[in-house]
Amino acid sequence: RSGEMAKSTQLIDNEVFRAYATYAAIVLLKMMLMSLVTAYFRITRKAFVNPEDVASFGKGESAKKFLRTDADVERVRRIHLNDLENIVPFVGIGLLYALSGPDLSTALLHFRIFAGARIVHTLAYLIPLPQPGRGLSWAVGYAVTISMAYKVLKTA
Amino acid sequence: RSGEMAKSTQLIDNEVFRAYATYAAIVLLKMMLMSLVTAYFRITRKAFVNPEDVASFGKGESAKKFLRTDADVERVRRIHLNDLENIVPFVGIGLLYALSGPDLSTALLHFRIFAGARIVHTLAYLIPLPQPGRGLSWAVGYAVTISMAYKVLKTA
Amino acid sequence: RSGEMAKSTQLIDNEVFRAYATYAAIVLLKMMLMSLVTAYFRITRKAFVNPEDVASFGKGESAKKFLRTDADVERVRRIHLNDLENIVPFVGIGLLYALSGPDLSTALLHFRIFAGARIVHTLAYLIPLPQPGRGLSWAVGYAVTISMAYKVLKTA
Repeated sequence: RSGEMAKSTQLIDNEVFRAYATYAAIVLLKMMLMSLVTAYFRITRKAFVNPEDVASFGKGESAKKFLRTDADVERVRRIHLNDLENIVPFVGIGLLYALSGPDLSTALLHFRIFAGARIVHTLAYLIPLPQPGRGLSWAVGYAVTISMAYKVLKTA
Repeated sequence: RSGEMAKSTQLIDNEVFRAYATYAAIVLLKMMLMSLVTAYFRITRKAFVNPEDVASFGKGESAKKFLRTDADVERVRRIHLNDLENIVPFVGIGLLYALSGPDLSTALLHFRIFAGARIVHTLAYLIPLPQPGRGLSWAVGYAVTISMAYKVLKTA
Repeated sequence: RSGEMAKSTQLIDNEVFRAYATYAAIVLLKMMLMSLVTAYFRITRKAFVNPEDVASFGKGESAKKFLRTDADVERVRRIHLNDLENIVPFVGIGLLYALSGPDLSTALLHFRIFAGARIVHTLAYLIPLPQPGRGLSWAVGYAVTISMAYKVLKTA
């Protein structure tokens, strides 16, 4: 068992990989949070999409009126999709980057700026802040991922 | 070559990682299955979205009537998107969890409950089952991923 | 530090993993490119979705007319979503496949065909080419991922 443990904790013993694990978990949890925010807005705005979700509101027309789109729900769904489009590349490329032997301080800089940028992006989208607030926070996260991809392709 | 093989099979020799590989592949294949189900409903319901996809049905108005949305197609697309929103965090966080040195039995419990919950979720969405069937199966998968993330952040 | 480096570059020293890292980075960058193409079409077609994005075009009705959908923008968004649905399984299953000890030549064949198929898929969707151009390129990428999943499940 101890041999197995040793093998399994090899990567997690590496400081850069441990930093990656922390920040990848944080941004994935942030992305997952959007599911709860969507559910919150669907319930408070009474805006659903599946007939079976409004069955408890009564039968026929009285329930059907809750099968509608709501501007706030759609906004949260766009944040969630934008997270998928940007956090998925970060998690994938970030893993390869963490294994490409970067300096710990350089890696931490990449991971922290990305995580910060995505949290700012979510707030800028949700409040919403005037542009280019959201646009800039998106671009910062995008640039960090490109920078990591460049290091991966140079190493591999 | 044997040295290379040894290195490459290091992780796959670890029992927890092998369990992760099995269940990650299963849920990703389940997610990929939604593409085929979407194609099946698009073809049987004759509901397409791209003009070039209906060109074989004839020219002009006779083909354009198949450029429409269909309730069943949209339902399958929502399942697919929900899979992306939930299976992506499982695959990402699950990898870090598998490398954080959990007990094999605890890890198997997490992986099996998640895979089971997502299969139930798909069936509950597709049939559809009355709520809270789909909601509960979603929540179980969500809770498993949060539990793995907690272990990852505690270890890293 | 050298011990740390040694550990961190272990996987990246493996030829199959290095090939995986290269092609995973390429297809993830290709997916990220869709964000820029969407932004390009939104700006040139003046078709936006968030009120704060059109605030610089003036106040009231003069700006609201740019809150609209555009066929080209929607097409690019469908390519992006299709990338998420197909490149995510490739990156996840491909990692497990790379760690399952395949021959370098077999692995390169899988990675190169997938990357080529997804680039053809994007071009076929964007131009658009007549069907079954896009359908076939999608099916080739799908089959490659299934083939890698089969190897992973057989090994694990």
